[in-house]
Amino acid sequence: MSTYNSNLAWRYATKKFDATKKVSDKDLETLKEAIQLSASSYGLQPYKVLIITDQLTKEKLRPVAWNQSQITDASHLIVFATINNFGEENIKEYIENIGTTRGIPTENLQGYFDMMNANITPLPDAIKSAWTAKQTYIALGNLLSAAADLKIDTCPMEGFEADKFTEILGLDKLGLTPTVIAPIGYRAEDDETQHYKKVRKSSEDLFINI
Amino acid sequence: MSTYNSNLAWRYATKKFDATKKVSDKDLETLKEAIQLSASSYGLQPYKVLIITDQLTKEKLRPVAWNQSQITDASHLIVFATINNFGEENIKEYIENIGTTRGIPTENLQGYFDMMNANITPLPDAIKSAWTAKQTYIALGNLLSAAADLKIDTCPMEGFEADKFTEILGLDKLGLTPTVIAPIGYRAEDDETQHYKKVRKSSEDLFINI
Repeated sequence: MSTYNSNLAWRYATKKFDATKKVSDKDLETLKEAIQLSASSYGLQPYKVLIITDQLTKEKLRPVAWNQSQITDASHLIVFATINNFGEENIKEYIENIGTTRGIPTENLQGYFDMMNANITPLPDAIKSAWTAKQTYIALGNLLSAAADLKIDTCPMEGFEADKFTEILGLDKLGLTPTVIAPIGYRAEDDETQHYKKVRKSSEDLFINI
Repeated sequence: MSTYNSNLAWRYATKKFDATKKVSDKDLETLKEAIQLSASSYGLQPYKVLIITDQLTKEKLRPVAWNQSQITDASHLIVFATINNFGEENIKEYIENIGTTRGIPTENLQGYFDMMNANITPLPDAIKSAWTAKQTYIALGNLLSAAADLKIDTCPMEGFEADKFTEILGLDKLGLTPTVIAPIGYRAEDDETQHYKKVRKSSEDLFINI
């Protein structure tokens, strides 16, 4: 098994974190960089990522996340949140970023802007928010693997009240909607679930070869 | 920069593959294993993954994927497809898999089954298919990172006609809907885009610290 896959096999949805162990600033920067390098549709990154260290905030969030102990016991809580009404202005910012990064006059990128703007801006709300949400799951997947590479534990969670998270974190004022969250830190020694055998579909069941 | 992040920095959405270079069986198995080990909601893996090697099939798919050359030039085309009407039967299969893998009588898992079944099976179609689709994006993200770890190139694509893919691949008979695809292989030497500087949001723009 490759080291990469051994890390994936090592990771599990951590049920109990050791509240005394903190992710170092250096490792946190590595994880943030991995999130930042994640692929996204057209490269637009239509989301923001909240890094919650403040214990009081975590305590407020726990009751609206099925009271799961990972919220308060983990070192950091990562919240992926999509940008509401993603459209023309956001695409313009991206074009400007391409221009600056690659030293291209933005007028040379007009065709690329027009194409993205025509494809994305008119999308109906439900379809657009499903599309932005999917992009956060690429970044989430990447966070899980990057963390495992550093032997940092994670627990991806969809079980939280998005409207309450929005309220507590003031996300409406920021024009953001939380899609998925992941506490990160270190497993507690007595989390029995770390010893459970990983359950996965067999290769025969999961793959179709054509 | 960590090796993991260097690999992410190395990867890019490959515009032109070298059609003469093939991913080895050994490396393909490693990538399949990485997909198989991907996290998913409850661990349900509500999808299948098609590995398309057949050149004729790739040629049929190319015109309904914006005629992108990567479809035919890449070594393999990976198609992620969600399971339609995911519900009770699928959850039962998962419970049986847990029972077999961990040596637990399935009657001891009745509560877990009931919880998942109550949460998932009654979901309206649009919400359920958005939820299953998001799970495929975790696996996609993982594939991109696992491939980069082996210095295998990828190009994640949403630009394809899902209904035509369904027809050509006979996915309706299999009860599947394609969500996202990724050709994998090796970049062509003359793909100029490999030299483009990666464009990403700044850390200040992407992250919010609380």
